[in-house]
Amino acid sequence: MTETLTGWAATTKDKPLVQMELPLAQWNEYSVDMNITHCGMCGSDIHTIDEGWGPTAFPCVVGHEIVGVVTRIGDKVTNIKVGDRGGVGPECYSCQKCPTCLEGYQNGCERGYTGTYNGKLPNGDKTYGGYADKWRGDSRWVFKVPDSMSSEDAACFFCAGVTTYAPLKKFNVNEKSIVGVLGIGGLGHFGVLFAKAMGATVVGMSHNDNKKEISKQLGCDDFINTHNESDLARYRKKLTHILCTGTSNDFQWGTFFNLLHVNGNFMNVAAPEWNFPELSPLQLLMSQISISGTAAGPPDIMQEMINFAAEKGLKPWITTYKMSDVNNAISDFRAGKPRFRFVLEN
Amino acid sequence: MTETLTGWAATTKDKPLVQMELPLAQWNEYSVDMNITHCGMCGSDIHTIDEGWGPTAFPCVVGHEIVGVVTRIGDKVTNIKVGDRGGVGPECYSCQKCPTCLEGYQNGCERGYTGTYNGKLPNGDKTYGGYADKWRGDSRWVFKVPDSMSSEDAACFFCAGVTTYAPLKKFNVNEKSIVGVLGIGGLGHFGVLFAKAMGATVVGMSHNDNKKEISKQLGCDDFINTHNESDLARYRKKLTHILCTGTSNDFQWGTFFNLLHVNGNFMNVAAPEWNFPELSPLQLLMSQISISGTAAGPPDIMQEMINFAAEKGLKPWITTYKMSDVNNAISDFRAGKPRFRFVLEN
Repeated sequence: MTETLTGWAATTKDKPLVQMELPLAQWNEYSVDMNITHCGMCGSDIHTIDEGWGPTAFPCVVGHEIVGVVTRIGDKVTNIKVGDRGGVGPECYSCQKCPTCLEGYQNGCERGYTGTYNGKLPNGDKTYGGYADKWRGDSRWVFKVPDSMSSEDAACFFCAGVTTYAPLKKFNVNEKSIVGVLGIGGLGHFGVLFAKAMGATVVGMSHNDNKKEISKQLGCDDFINTHNESDLARYRKKLTHILCTGTSNDFQWGTFFNLLHVNGNFMNVAAPEWNFPELSPLQLLMSQISISGTAAGPPDIMQEMINFAAEKGLKPWITTYKMSDVNNAISDFRAGKPRFRFVLEN
Repeated sequence: MTETLTGWAATTKDKPLVQMELPLAQWNEYSVDMNITHCGMCGSDIHTIDEGWGPTAFPCVVGHEIVGVVTRIGDKVTNIKVGDRGGVGPECYSCQKCPTCLEGYQNGCERGYTGTYNGKLPNGDKTYGGYADKWRGDSRWVFKVPDSMSSEDAACFFCAGVTTYAPLKKFNVNEKSIVGVLGIGGLGHFGVLFAKAMGATVVGMSHNDNKKEISKQLGCDDFINTHNESDLARYRKKLTHILCTGTSNDFQWGTFFNLLHVNGNFMNVAAPEWNFPELSPLQLLMSQISISGTAAGPPDIMQEMINFAAEKGLKPWITTYKMSDVNNAISDFRAGKPRFRFVLEN
C-alpha cells in the first residue's frame, strides 16, 4: 500500500514549488484516502508559502480547497464511502473534547484546530494539503460533494465558500436583507453568490469603481464606491449586513456605521496586514450595530454549505490550471489575475 | 394653568446649579404633565453640565431618570392616566416616520431622537429634564411605574436600568449564560442585578481588586481582576457575554477575546473619553465573537424592562438627596461616592 504522496512543496519562501515525495499521515480507523482531482488556490496558501503569518514548517504542501475521489476508508468511517467524491477545507482535525468542539464549533477548538497544511496531528504527523496527488486525513473533516456539482466547481467552496456562507447564515441573511459585500475578489464573489441565493438584495462595495461592472455581472443589485458621497448617501442606514471580505488601509469605521441599519451586522472574514482603526465606544453604542468575525466553518456547516450551493446551482467563476503548472498559477495569482478563483487540476 | 417649571439649571459649565423658572413645552394631544417626585443622577447629566460631549444650550436642566405623578394627559394619551406614576428616560421624542422608528427602535431614530434635556422638539421648544418640580412631554415616552416598586427605586431604571437590560435582552442572556460585567459602578450594578434576574451566572470584572467584595455583596458569583493572570486563566473562553459598563484606558481587546466563548458577545454601553484600541481583523475572526453596543432602549423595551424589574423585585443600591441639595449631590457624585446611584427627591 502506498504510504506516500507526491506534492508540489514549498521548500523555502523564495523559491518555486518543487515536486517531492512525502509521507502520508499514519492510518487509523477514521482515515480516508483520496486521489486528489482538484485543489483551489487560496490567499492563505500564498501567505503560508511567504511565511506572512509566521514561520512555515518546510517542506510544505499547501492547498485547502481539496476535492478528490475516495479510495479507502477506515473501519469507523460512516459519512463517506469508496468512490464518493470528498471535499476538504482548511481544518482537518480538532481535540473534539473541549466545550467549543462539543458544541459543534470545532473551527474554534480551544486547543487550536489542526490546519490542513502546515499543521500537526496529535501523533506528531505533519499535514500536507491539496497541491498533490493524494490526501489522507480524518473522515470527520471530509464532506461529500453533491452529485450535481462538478469537482472543479466544488473545490473552492471548501474554503472561500464556507468562509462567506458561515457568517451570512449565522447572522440570518434572508430575503429581507440588504447585504453589502465589501471587496469583490475571491471571497467577495462567493459572498455575492451566497447572499443572492439566500434571497437578499446584494450591493457590491469597493473603494473605487474598478469592480462596479463585474459586480453587476456577478449578480449584485447595486454598487457602492466607498469614496463616492452619493453612493454612501443612497445607502445611509440601509444595509442590514456588511460582509467584509477585503479592506483598503484607509478603512474608517464611520463609513460603515453610517451605512448599517439599526441592529445591522458588520461581519469580517478578511485578514489584511493592517488593523481596523480605533473604535469610538460612543459611536459603537449609538449606531447599535455589531462587529463580528467568523473563521471558515465547523464540519456541520461545511456539509450544509456545499449541499446548499448544489441545491441552488451556484457556479463560481474559476480558471483552471494543470497541477503541474502550479508555479505559473501562483505567478498569475500574485499578479492579481483571478476572476475570481484559480483551481489546480490533476 | 401653570406653563412653567421650576428647575435646578446649569447656566454655564463652571457654576453650581441655580433654581430658575423655565417654560414647559407647548401642550398637545399626546402631552403628559407630571409632578416630579424623584430623579436619578446619571453620568450623562454631569457630562452635559460640563459640556464634555459638546456645547450645552444653557440654561439647561438635566436629569433623565425621572419619576413623577401624572397630573394631566392629552386627549390621545392611552398608556397612562392622571394619578399614575410615570417614568421617563433619556429620550422623549423621535420622528416616528423613519424605518428605524417604524421598526420600534426609536432610540436609533435616523433623524436623531430628542433628548430629555438639552434637546429640541420639532416645534423648537427646548427640553428640560428631571432636576425640577414638573415635567411635560410626549406620553409615548412615559412609562407606567409598576405598583410594587417605590418611586425612589424606580427612577434610575429609566436610564441606567434600561441601558444594561437592553443588551442583555438583545443578546439573549439566560440561565445558561455566564456574563462578565466589566465595571462595577452605577451601570454595572444594574447589569449584575438584571443578569442575575435573567438566571445567568454573573462575574464582576474590574481592573483591580477594589470592587471584589462589593461585587459579591451585589450578587456576583465570582470576580475577575483583569490584571490578575490566574483570574483570566480561570475564565479562559468561559464567558458567553461581557457587558462593558466602564473601561480603563489600558483596555486591550486580547484580554476580552480570550475570556469570551465562541459566539460570545462583547456588549458596550460605556462612553469613556478614550477609544477602544485598534482591532486585529484576524484576531476578530479567529475568536468568532461579536462586538456591539446599544443606546438606552426604545419605548417597548423601556416598559418591558421596568415590568421585569418589578416582577423580579429588583432593588437598586441608591442614596437619596433632597432635590434642594442637588449641588452637594453633584459634588459627591464627582468625588466618586455613589454606591451605586444617587436619587434626588422632591
